[in-house]
Amino acid sequence: MGITDKSKGLLIVLSGPSGAGKGTVCSALRNRLPDLTYSVSATTRQPREGEVNGVNYFFKSHAEFERMIEEGKLLEWAKYVNNYYGTPREFVEEKLEEGKDVLLEIEVQGARQVKEQFPQGVFIFLLPPSMQELRERIRNRGTETEESLHNRMKAAENELKQVEYYDYVVVNDVVEDACDRIRAILVAEHSRKDRFLENHPDWLEGF
Amino acid sequence: MGITDKSKGLLIVLSGPSGAGKGTVCSALRNRLPDLTYSVSATTRQPREGEVNGVNYFFKSHAEFERMIEEGKLLEWAKYVNNYYGTPREFVEEKLEEGKDVLLEIEVQGARQVKEQFPQGVFIFLLPPSMQELRERIRNRGTETEESLHNRMKAAENELKQVEYYDYVVVNDVVEDACDRIRAILVAEHSRKDRFLENHPDWLEGF
Repeated sequence: MGITDKSKGLLIVLSGPSGAGKGTVCSALRNRLPDLTYSVSATTRQPREGEVNGVNYFFKSHAEFERMIEEGKLLEWAKYVNNYYGTPREFVEEKLEEGKDVLLEIEVQGARQVKEQFPQGVFIFLLPPSMQELRERIRNRGTETEESLHNRMKAAENELKQVEYYDYVVVNDVVEDACDRIRAILVAEHSRKDRFLENHPDWLEGF
Repeated sequence: MGITDKSKGLLIVLSGPSGAGKGTVCSALRNRLPDLTYSVSATTRQPREGEVNGVNYFFKSHAEFERMIEEGKLLEWAKYVNNYYGTPREFVEEKLEEGKDVLLEIEVQGARQVKEQFPQGVFIFLLPPSMQELRERIRNRGTETEESLHNRMKAAENELKQVEYYDYVVVNDVVEDACDRIRAILVAEHSRKDRFLENHPDWLEGF
């Protein structure tokens, strides 16, 4: 046996505050790292035109989704505007077992839930190029009362403070550079000594 | 202030058993990563033709070297065949302060000494593509008695067991691939949350 065998896949969680550009970076990663597996979320909202079940989302009824919650079949979930969104556990676990790296692009609250179940995951916190810019992005998202703007700022500040639960911080200054850093994190994580020894318990054999 | 400011340099220690190819990988890295600072060792051995003081080595007399040891001016040192070899502390610390990443390519014993003084360094253990190949390389290094071969094998086995003190394991299957992994480790380490927060204590200001 050599010592470059395929090891078990990594769970990578890409999260960060609203307005950091998670979706944009994730789209760029799909082109840049096609070997990475991108987790497909489940939702109770109606499919939009062109959306395919199992590709864009797993579309579920409210009853089905609630049964998934009860049976522990979701790694994380949340309800926004009367619809459920979540990450099915089975798809992720199967891919990891096959040795594939799986990326979840999720909100900060969901990342916290995943961390509790997968502490060995790789947690990446995406930040915008500056705090002033993030403030502007949040401010410009719709015309609102001062009170609701204040609430959204408070929510964003709470999201930012969650950085402490993450392993890495990637600044999304230029999307391609952010992708390069995320790729580097994957390569480095596969080279970590603890993972190496875990995946190659008999590496000293043959010497 | 943005949040992509230059942070303090990283100390990277590239080590591993004799025969892993540390010198070859380090030479390739000099071409591949010219912005990295490569530590210059001090030695008491005579300069060979073409070797330049301060470039290939800092050439020292025995008395000078022993004074450096006494005054704690070496990060690590050892004596091989009546000559001293070591890593001057000042050069490394100056470059790190300037924000430059510094790479030390050293033996396993030296890496252990550096670890005691720079636990925050990034320790990379280089391995040959297979244990059988390492065995062959050690076996073919000179014609010796069975006893001295046995001793060298024992020494190599002890070196291999030091892997536990390292952060990363990089398999030197193809030199360019090993360089790519080392580059990825540097990029990832600069993105570590703990370093980010240490280097940007006021990152939340302006939000």
